[in-house]
Amino acid sequence: MRFAAPDNQRVILAERPVGPLADHHFMIEDVATTPPHDGDVVCRTWWLSIDAAARTWMQGRTYRERLEVGDVIPGAAVAEVVVSRADHVPAGTIVRCDSGWQRYATLPGSAVRPVDDAVPITRHLSVLDVTGHTAYFGLFDVGALRPGETVVVSAAAGATGSLVGQLARIAGARIIGIVGSDDKGALLVERLGFDGFVNRHASDLRSALRTACPDGADVYFDNVGGPILATMLRAMNLRGRIVCCGAASQYDKETPDPGPAGVPGLLVTKRLRMEGFIVFDYAHRFDEANAALRRWLDDGSLVAVEDIVEGLASAPGALIGLLAGSNVGKRLVRVAD
Amino acid sequence: MRFAAPDNQRVILAERPVGPLADHHFMIEDVATTPPHDGDVVCRTWWLSIDAAARTWMQGRTYRERLEVGDVIPGAAVAEVVVSRADHVPAGTIVRCDSGWQRYATLPGSAVRPVDDAVPITRHLSVLDVTGHTAYFGLFDVGALRPGETVVVSAAAGATGSLVGQLARIAGARIIGIVGSDDKGALLVERLGFDGFVNRHASDLRSALRTACPDGADVYFDNVGGPILATMLRAMNLRGRIVCCGAASQYDKETPDPGPAGVPGLLVTKRLRMEGFIVFDYAHRFDEANAALRRWLDDGSLVAVEDIVEGLASAPGALIGLLAGSNVGKRLVRVAD
Repeated sequence: MRFAAPDNQRVILAERPVGPLADHHFMIEDVATTPPHDGDVVCRTWWLSIDAAARTWMQGRTYRERLEVGDVIPGAAVAEVVVSRADHVPAGTIVRCDSGWQRYATLPGSAVRPVDDAVPITRHLSVLDVTGHTAYFGLFDVGALRPGETVVVSAAAGATGSLVGQLARIAGARIIGIVGSDDKGALLVERLGFDGFVNRHASDLRSALRTACPDGADVYFDNVGGPILATMLRAMNLRGRIVCCGAASQYDKETPDPGPAGVPGLLVTKRLRMEGFIVFDYAHRFDEANAALRRWLDDGSLVAVEDIVEGLASAPGALIGLLAGSNVGKRLVRVAD
Repeated sequence: MRFAAPDNQRVILAERPVGPLADHHFMIEDVATTPPHDGDVVCRTWWLSIDAAARTWMQGRTYRERLEVGDVIPGAAVAEVVVSRADHVPAGTIVRCDSGWQRYATLPGSAVRPVDDAVPITRHLSVLDVTGHTAYFGLFDVGALRPGETVVVSAAAGATGSLVGQLARIAGARIIGIVGSDDKGALLVERLGFDGFVNRHASDLRSALRTACPDGADVYFDNVGGPILATMLRAMNLRGRIVCCGAASQYDKETPDPGPAGVPGLLVTKRLRMEGFIVFDYAHRFDEANAALRRWLDDGSLVAVEDIVEGLASAPGALIGLLAGSNVGKRLVRVAD
């Protein structure tokens, strides 16, 4: 069978960023779509997930190899199989795949996963995927949350934070979000059932936290690192758990902040546990997480907050803005539909 | 019954230290021994335990109230009951008690614990007490050590470190000590069965660690905090555990070092766990620890290393020296015998 190649368009890393990420670090190029071999599928990207982690991949080796200049920016997508040379995934199937930032991705059929279209398909990126799994395993497994405890989450209006807060509420905890603006905080309280919020620009963050958490914090879900982590160490209760999920405050810095004072002193006196995790370590339990998340979506206790940006060419700006906290909820780029 | 008060001598805090601890922060005074009430005993101190933690108590509130000027320096002791008004502890009983730094302590009979004299009585301070329990619960519970793993311990020739290393060896782990001199390191290897050591004054600590631990470290038992902790974060293997026991490098500093770079970034990418603990949280399991420690002492697999200093007046200097790493093993002051 001849392959009628659609015209592909993709976003590549044009220059390795040092300091703040900017438009000129990216380049959009038109190329031919890679022809599929036996077993491959060609996927047309519908929705692209924008994730802060992409910034860390540009920096150095993390839990994956460093992204090199010329590489397509990696990213998860919901896509439609438009050409199939893999029997089990016929053309027309809607799949979750790691397409990267491009219109057409040619991938092994074994690397794409058909998705259930009984929920709006964006939910397969905003909730029933990495973001939701990160919130679920971070809060319940790493954080070992118990009902009645107080949880604080930073970047609380972000994709992960807005889910962490809702899961904490569902689990019977008290939940306070740290956010970049009062508007975001109000949204968390009014729409997502947070018990309160603290604006990270407060003149005295420590005392604002004390007011919001008069009984201290038992679990801190840390998406930002830096000075907020240092302040939270002082707000933690005895035997508190700090879930180290990310350090978004540091991703764009040429010289990272020094580590938080209070490590290890406060860890000892308060018997604190800090633990980092990568969601992929829980891959064997993704079905468990999805079953729970799906149930909560269906019964309305979990609200998906999606922040839609239009067009592949907007993806670089969408990531740059995300790192500065311009999003509310999960940022998705609509590439086609 | 009339109480014939022996003359007491005690060491009190004369001035709150700021920066390095020095002789003039202490004062020795002669006072009358406090008369015992019903239920009390008067204990004559034989051996006094010298512990780095005493420095932290002078600084501020930790897991106990801050020590105030005029207070007797607290400390554990093995002592002889010389006057008893408590039926269950007759005069002549040898007890473990918190006498503090003084010749005679008057204590409730319920606060002293008779010790088994089938082992040399100093073992009740050097191994079968706080120091041994700290090593045991820190390594096995907090560190969750598994056979075949590599353990690194700092202040390895100190009271706790020298036990941590031996317990790790007994548990089938590979054990590397970080020490302040090559002589100390040689002692650990030759007498205590450590697999190797690293001198903390090495010009390139990171590369010295890499040589000593070619397969990285799975557990780091941290007694010092500061720059060594920062370096160890880089030497840790995936899913490593850092046992936060103390931060001796910081106790004498007016302005603490900034926290370790790599928190939280390296915790995330390597899925590390850092956890602080206070041994008293394990009080309900001290019998378990003592049974194991006693068995290993008896069969010769565990060697008690005791560093004896003579005379109560030497106690301040013994603590000052300990903070600078002048001791090898458990430092004890012989007050009487």
